[in-house]
Amino acid sequence: MSTFEASNLTEKMTDTPKFAVIGGGSWATAIAKMLCVNLPEIAWYMRNTYAIEHIKINRHNPNYLSSVEFDTNKLKLTNDINEAVAYADYVIFAIPSAFLKGELENLTVSLKDKVIFSAIKGIVPETSLIVGEHFHKIYDIPYNNIGVITGPCHAEEVALERLSYLTIACGDDEKAKVMSKNLNSHYIKSKTSDDIIGTEYAAMLKNIYSIAAGIAHGLGYGDNFQALLMSNAIREMKKYIKKVHKMKRNINDSAYLGDLLVTGYSIFSRNRMFGNMIGKGYTVKSAQMEMSMVAEGYYATKSAHKLNEEYKAKTPIIDAVYDILYEGKEPKKVFKKLTEKLD
Amino acid sequence: MSTFEASNLTEKMTDTPKFAVIGGGSWATAIAKMLCVNLPEIAWYMRNTYAIEHIKINRHNPNYLSSVEFDTNKLKLTNDINEAVAYADYVIFAIPSAFLKGELENLTVSLKDKVIFSAIKGIVPETSLIVGEHFHKIYDIPYNNIGVITGPCHAEEVALERLSYLTIACGDDEKAKVMSKNLNSHYIKSKTSDDIIGTEYAAMLKNIYSIAAGIAHGLGYGDNFQALLMSNAIREMKKYIKKVHKMKRNINDSAYLGDLLVTGYSIFSRNRMFGNMIGKGYTVKSAQMEMSMVAEGYYATKSAHKLNEEYKAKTPIIDAVYDILYEGKEPKKVFKKLTEKLD
Repeated sequence: MSTFEASNLTEKMTDTPKFAVIGGGSWATAIAKMLCVNLPEIAWYMRNTYAIEHIKINRHNPNYLSSVEFDTNKLKLTNDINEAVAYADYVIFAIPSAFLKGELENLTVSLKDKVIFSAIKGIVPETSLIVGEHFHKIYDIPYNNIGVITGPCHAEEVALERLSYLTIACGDDEKAKVMSKNLNSHYIKSKTSDDIIGTEYAAMLKNIYSIAAGIAHGLGYGDNFQALLMSNAIREMKKYIKKVHKMKRNINDSAYLGDLLVTGYSIFSRNRMFGNMIGKGYTVKSAQMEMSMVAEGYYATKSAHKLNEEYKAKTPIIDAVYDILYEGKEPKKVFKKLTEKLD
Repeated sequence: MSTFEASNLTEKMTDTPKFAVIGGGSWATAIAKMLCVNLPEIAWYMRNTYAIEHIKINRHNPNYLSSVEFDTNKLKLTNDINEAVAYADYVIFAIPSAFLKGELENLTVSLKDKVIFSAIKGIVPETSLIVGEHFHKIYDIPYNNIGVITGPCHAEEVALERLSYLTIACGDDEKAKVMSKNLNSHYIKSKTSDDIIGTEYAAMLKNIYSIAAGIAHGLGYGDNFQALLMSNAIREMKKYIKKVHKMKRNINDSAYLGDLLVTGYSIFSRNRMFGNMIGKGYTVKSAQMEMSMVAEGYYATKSAHKLNEEYKAKTPIIDAVYDILYEGKEPKKVFKKLTEKLD
């Protein structure tokens, strides 16, 4: 090995990028857990100062995935988003999309030269942009510095260290690989993708289909219909994403179909739970009040429906969910009509 | 209306085809129920004379879907397969594939001029042919007289009259339409297809994937892995069927993906149950003895694996199930290896 190579190696080794996780929910907690397997230290921002103090003393998040124990020596916990962002080269956003705009308004530290990964799986309600687009258009971050972390992956199973697969998409494949390497462990296998737009749209759309699955269940439709609904949903998703960003992708890859299935079939999915309440007769408002977590699909439905005025994809399932959630139409009647359009 | 048209109409009306259901299990019972909505009479063959007598007196099948009440005036019940076949123009086979060859050996009535529909979803173990191919090759029935009835459809939900969708494939579209019309009702929507080979292979292969899902569950893999497995399974199925019979088909249509999902996600599926026992450590023999129903996927695994020596599709999931069921390999080790091949 030449001296040149050796010094290069040293430089690389000392040059291990730093990571920050933004968010204190279950998915943020799961990602913090994954990173701590590989990294000596991460920054972790959450708003809730009580939770921070609790983690410092008791080594677990009191509100989400509380069974996960952290080595607190590895955690630079902070309730100042600027501190976390300033610390890191790679910043992972894992907060509800509805809070993103507000959180970013607190930023005084520049996002320039940061690599931004979205683990949000939603759409920014104020701009109707998926998170990657939001950072690109509003903060002028090049797509080479923007990435997406997507499933199929329930945070709850990460807590249990059950084998899970992730897809890491980024405009710059090297950065996707860096993220992938630092998330991998004996229970996490991740692969990289260049479909940064498609994977994020899929992650957003699947929440709408999960609400649809919940509504169907709440109305009394059974497993036969659920399978039929998912089979229609993936075809609808394919058409929609193709209109948004045409490229060669296999919609049955795990980042698209897998992610749809894990959410659409999970009784723990908050989107499905929300839909189930709607199907059972709750009003949108009372269902939202009943749930302490945000159903991403609620916002996604409005935005996806609005965006589709431009794309004009044929989306009977999204339309049905929109009619129920935003037009006050009766779930039973809307789904009766929907059943005529599916096959 | 001219006299000619009128008499034509009369001829057609008196010419309503006659239907026979072959089999006394849950799927046969569900199909008999569907047909009775539309037809004044059907023939229904089952081996079990006790069950026949029970239905005649108590109006329900004592062994399967016993909540379904029949109008016994509509049923020509018989334990003589020749009587049922002689009666009918359309003969629907809904018995386990392992019994088909034996049952057909009792036939003295010719199958010539009969329209044969398979609702078997399996492979004939003795010939390694799917049912349609078996009738075509062994009994010289033209593909125009062969059809397939496929899901996604659990018999149990037909009993509950929960909305279910069927795909009816036949070489002759007119015959598919006749079958479709006579199965439709307020809880059954069926559509027709010309992919008689592909739909039947899908119905057979999905049972293998369902065993795989069961094994994974038995081994302690969770919902994240299940979604990943199904996403890989549909891609594997697509490749396999394409090798067998190349034609334009959307593998995400309900007859393929929907059928895979309804079985792969059902805790009631006997194939998944069988796999689950294997994953939990039962031997193949003890798992089979424990179950009173036949797991079609057990035979399908052997045949699909053997057929693939010719087709050479890349089928890591089928291979894994085969290694466990037929090569005595340890499920835990085989699945550990499999997880490296999936993405």
